[in-house]
Amino acid sequence: MNHAAERATTQPSNGTFITFEGGDGAGKTTQAELLSAWCAERGREVVRTREPGGTPLGVEVRRLLLHGGDAIGAVDPRAEALLYAADRAQHVAAVVRPALDRGAVVVQDRYIDSSLAYQGAGRVLDPAEVRGLSEWAVQGLWPHLTVLLDIAPAAAAARRAARGGTADRLEAEAEAFHRAVRDGFLALAAAEPERYLVLDATRPAAELHAAITARVAELDGASAV
Amino acid sequence: MNHAAERATTQPSNGTFITFEGGDGAGKTTQAELLSAWCAERGREVVRTREPGGTPLGVEVRRLLLHGGDAIGAVDPRAEALLYAADRAQHVAAVVRPALDRGAVVVQDRYIDSSLAYQGAGRVLDPAEVRGLSEWAVQGLWPHLTVLLDIAPAAAAARRAARGGTADRLEAEAEAFHRAVRDGFLALAAAEPERYLVLDATRPAAELHAAITARVAELDGASAV
Repeated sequence: MNHAAERATTQPSNGTFITFEGGDGAGKTTQAELLSAWCAERGREVVRTREPGGTPLGVEVRRLLLHGGDAIGAVDPRAEALLYAADRAQHVAAVVRPALDRGAVVVQDRYIDSSLAYQGAGRVLDPAEVRGLSEWAVQGLWPHLTVLLDIAPAAAAARRAARGGTADRLEAEAEAFHRAVRDGFLALAAAEPERYLVLDATRPAAELHAAITARVAELDGASAV
Repeated sequence: MNHAAERATTQPSNGTFITFEGGDGAGKTTQAELLSAWCAERGREVVRTREPGGTPLGVEVRRLLLHGGDAIGAVDPRAEALLYAADRAQHVAAVVRPALDRGAVVVQDRYIDSSLAYQGAGRVLDPAEVRGLSEWAVQGLWPHLTVLLDIAPAAAAARRAARGGTADRLEAEAEAFHRAVRDGFLALAAAEPERYLVLDATRPAAELHAAITARVAELDGASAV
């Protein structure tokens, strides 16, 4: 499907698309909210969103994938990758592209990189195939900036325990899986340093926020904040 | 994704995979049930199944696609194609391949050809891309025989009205769409005459059944009924 991705690749002319990546417990939500407030203070329209689950269809898909449990049974890896791609297609078409076309800043938890790190590195599928699937789903839309909040799996697990949430299917899996996911994110960041900002997620939240806003301010004199 | 489909293409060694295609109201269910009974009388294990909705996950996907309505809103064409492919991946992995590996006859309503005819011919997506998606989902599994029950859209609509069912989203669409779907099926059959049996669905059910069983008996001395 590479020819489709090439043919249809389009970057928005006005908006700014920023995604946050990293394992659960890395602090994505905190930093995304701080960045959203910072952008809004500077007069930009901000759209805070997430995958999976950023649309009504996506909420249903997320429910199936994370909490389907016994009613659904074991989900085939290809079916899982296709469901994430469906959520992503709907989300980009209904939420992200319209916002970018309006000139908004889209601040999003998780995007294609999560599929690559979780499905490609941690599971059984060919990462190039998973990437092709997602690129087809979104017609080649990539973020201007992806912030990777990097954290050791053991530290992330301690944060999740402190947060006291219930474990979903992904969180209940083994630490070896989380290590593979982390390695997957770091490899993605190394391959695209111009798109990625990699930060040590154990640093204080205010320091992380300062590093992120410094990079966002540099993004582009015309389109960035 | 073509290299994936080529690499992973596998045909079952023992089972027989037969699909029924055609518009709603063509009589697929009647003929599939008659064929299933015929195969079972000859001592074969028969698995009767369908797409979408042949697994618990598929039931949820089917519900979203056909009856999501206002709660979901307009579904992006790529998201729709990906959801059908996800249903298909799960169905083949959980139902079809295990049955074929046991040596069963799988008699199925709708498969990849439906996605090609409905999505490719009737909608906005490139049929080659929709085909690549489905082939990736099922790792290149194609049926031994596909029976196309061909019927003019007006005749099919009259049958559906007589049946008195409620119209789902696809059925409520315009006749021009149904004509494009029919043309799509006929083009698929013309491209693969060795896989396809095309029958005039307005013929008496008993005649259709006789034509289908004659073709099934010819399929393969070793693996067919």
